[in-house]
Amino acid sequence: MDFLVYGGSVVTMGRLGVVRDGAVLVEGDRIVEVGRSEEVKRRNPRGYERIDAEGKIIIPGLVNTHHHLAMSLLRGYADDLPLKEWLEKWIWPVESLMTGEDIYLGAKLTAVESVLGGCTTVNTMYHYAPEFNEARAIAEVGIRGVVGHVCFSWRKDEDIRLTKMLVEKWHGAENGRVRVSVDPHAPYTVDPGYMRELWSLTSELNEKYRDKAPVIWHIHLAETMDEAEKVEKAFNVDVKDGVVVYLDRLGVLGPIVIAAHCVHLTDKDIAVLASRDVKVSHNPVSNLKLGSGISPVPRLLESGVTVGLGTDSVCSNNSSDMFETMKLAALIHKGVSMNPALMDAWRVLRMATIDGARALNWSDEIGSIEPGKKADLVIIDAMKPHMRPMYSEVSHLVYAAKYGDVETVFVGGRPIVENREVKTVDVEELITQVSKARDRLMEKVRR
Amino acid sequence: MDFLVYGGSVVTMGRLGVVRDGAVLVEGDRIVEVGRSEEVKRRNPRGYERIDAEGKIIIPGLVNTHHHLAMSLLRGYADDLPLKEWLEKWIWPVESLMTGEDIYLGAKLTAVESVLGGCTTVNTMYHYAPEFNEARAIAEVGIRGVVGHVCFSWRKDEDIRLTKMLVEKWHGAENGRVRVSVDPHAPYTVDPGYMRELWSLTSELNEKYRDKAPVIWHIHLAETMDEAEKVEKAFNVDVKDGVVVYLDRLGVLGPIVIAAHCVHLTDKDIAVLASRDVKVSHNPVSNLKLGSGISPVPRLLESGVTVGLGTDSVCSNNSSDMFETMKLAALIHKGVSMNPALMDAWRVLRMATIDGARALNWSDEIGSIEPGKKADLVIIDAMKPHMRPMYSEVSHLVYAAKYGDVETVFVGGRPIVENREVKTVDVEELITQVSKARDRLMEKVRR
Repeated sequence: MDFLVYGGSVVTMGRLGVVRDGAVLVEGDRIVEVGRSEEVKRRNPRGYERIDAEGKIIIPGLVNTHHHLAMSLLRGYADDLPLKEWLEKWIWPVESLMTGEDIYLGAKLTAVESVLGGCTTVNTMYHYAPEFNEARAIAEVGIRGVVGHVCFSWRKDEDIRLTKMLVEKWHGAENGRVRVSVDPHAPYTVDPGYMRELWSLTSELNEKYRDKAPVIWHIHLAETMDEAEKVEKAFNVDVKDGVVVYLDRLGVLGPIVIAAHCVHLTDKDIAVLASRDVKVSHNPVSNLKLGSGISPVPRLLESGVTVGLGTDSVCSNNSSDMFETMKLAALIHKGVSMNPALMDAWRVLRMATIDGARALNWSDEIGSIEPGKKADLVIIDAMKPHMRPMYSEVSHLVYAAKYGDVETVFVGGRPIVENREVKTVDVEELITQVSKARDRLMEKVRR
Repeated sequence: MDFLVYGGSVVTMGRLGVVRDGAVLVEGDRIVEVGRSEEVKRRNPRGYERIDAEGKIIIPGLVNTHHHLAMSLLRGYADDLPLKEWLEKWIWPVESLMTGEDIYLGAKLTAVESVLGGCTTVNTMYHYAPEFNEARAIAEVGIRGVVGHVCFSWRKDEDIRLTKMLVEKWHGAENGRVRVSVDPHAPYTVDPGYMRELWSLTSELNEKYRDKAPVIWHIHLAETMDEAEKVEKAFNVDVKDGVVVYLDRLGVLGPIVIAAHCVHLTDKDIAVLASRDVKVSHNPVSNLKLGSGISPVPRLLESGVTVGLGTDSVCSNNSSDMFETMKLAALIHKGVSMNPALMDAWRVLRMATIDGARALNWSDEIGSIEPGKKADLVIIDAMKPHMRPMYSEVSHLVYAAKYGDVETVFVGGRPIVENREVKTVDVEELITQVSKARDRLMEKVRR
């Protein structure tokens, strides 16, 4: 679709900064021009559908760097419990009863929820099932995503087989909208040998798909205070310098790694994250809700680490709302450090857009509104009472804007949401299917 | 207006708990019956307008226990700055240029913003101006509020005069929707003698208006770490046991006091808050944004202190969103204490409703859906993707529901919002006026 959005404030997250009364020209799936409305219109007098964005803000699609899309079937199933009880008595038993179709439906619900909140790219880790899976849900809703199959020591052969199937079927699919990652679950569930094996697999895949997108490596890391101890006990290894240092000694860190959480880090861990250019996904809602603690993000940023934002699954959130996550990321570090100048709005908006794209090794195509990039655009209504008056678009985006202010969303130039209506999926029908899946699941739990 | 809402989940916050397929019967401004839809309908076969609430959740109007409504004209004007610079270079200079009309317009914008998010009662402290003021804004929008004139040592005579005018004109006005409080700004800006004088005034007023509602006392307390030191320096008094203990020695604490913030408390302070039945307004967003710290709310609750939730002004928030505040209140204490079982959803929902009403000494009329109480009702759409599937209404209200899910709001049986449209105010016109007021203000700042 070729079109020209004009008259709004374009928050490019690129070299042009914020362009008031700005325009974005899109041809096919790409942005071809960005500038002042007047000039872009003058240079392109006709041939484009025109979208009037007066009173609106246009931002690049938000990037959610850590999720488990499938788990939305369990939204609100169990909250406010001690971590061990929550996992062992509630989440794991019901997860073991979930079918491929449940995974697909849950992922579809989350994809719809995400795009309605201006998020156009998600990074997700879950169990891959050949027919019904998260990749299919992402493809059908029309958003962009990196999909991985979560790997554990106790099912190595199955994991390798499924990861290879996933890569073959989905890496680069849907005109490049879907990418695949290799996903070791965490240092305490993946033994050192298997960790290295998965790293080799990743290298092989990146060799094989040299012409396509990078196959990244998505792992939970340093989420809880006892993680080092858990790794030591599980594999009889030395983790006293920190879990990041431990992984580095295994030789499995580099710029293609995105590490979710990174809450409990030693000084040496932080230095390694920076020197290996490991990317970090900061998940403040989940870290608070599960009582994990607070990631030292200001120190990571000072050290030059690239940090994106994530929601984590709805089981520990319970939503996929990147606006909420931005605001919390801006607030929490100010509060615990008692320094209101930390984590300013601009910095946080970068984390949700261009730095999130960098964290997924995808910033050549997404994360900012610049000529040549994919046309992932979000149009936000800035005329509601809670968005008025206006001094700074960036302040409003982080501190005042809400999930429901997202009006229209394009992914690769294709309209996925128009005036809050999802164009690619029958949402009412999806909700009915989700309710039925929930009831079936609870039926199984009761048995 | 007499009407019957039926078919939804009624989260009463009273003895009935959550009534699924429940109904609420309203006559005039009061709730007369609550129960299962079938039964309430059978007992009241006709004569009521019927509102079908299938797929919706009905909650009592949310109570915001600390705000400065007028300040919304400064939303996003200055963020992310060190506290001293923020106040002295940005907020105070522009506030000094605000006219009565600015105060009235700002308050009206906030009242509209509040009710669109399901908040029906606000507790606000600002400068009173006889013609245009916050009380008038609240009255016109049709919500409920406690309005105070903020008192400082440097303008005693003016304060006493304005507070008396405010009480005479507005206390109990609008069929009891508007109440008035006495508002000493804070222990470091109100000297000990003036503090006692304002306490005497409050006692006199409560004597005089014995038949009307209580005149409560609204104060900022223990907001920042250096408050005790500031009080000691300003008035050469002993505050080493804490600022609450200091106020108690002055004899100005009791059940009509609502203390906003209470972040930096000594053990003795907490004991005094409990023994004097002082109410606390917890403002987590503001406390984080200004880098004030984190209030020990779990300890306050354990000690038996009544704690309500507040947003504080949009200058330190930057919104008036009680859903956001609920979620943050549930999350933050889990995270900093590393205990996910703290501050469960039910507890937090109570803080935003019935405990908030108690904190304002208003729980005889508001805060829960029970026969005899005022019909302040909020109908929430629970069929959106981010609210599906459903296991627990209470979990969803705190962890998943958003500002924009509020569909319809009644205050005292009167519809103020219907399908997200404000019925009492021309919102578009208000937004135009607000933009003009902002431009006038900035014009003055530039001069």
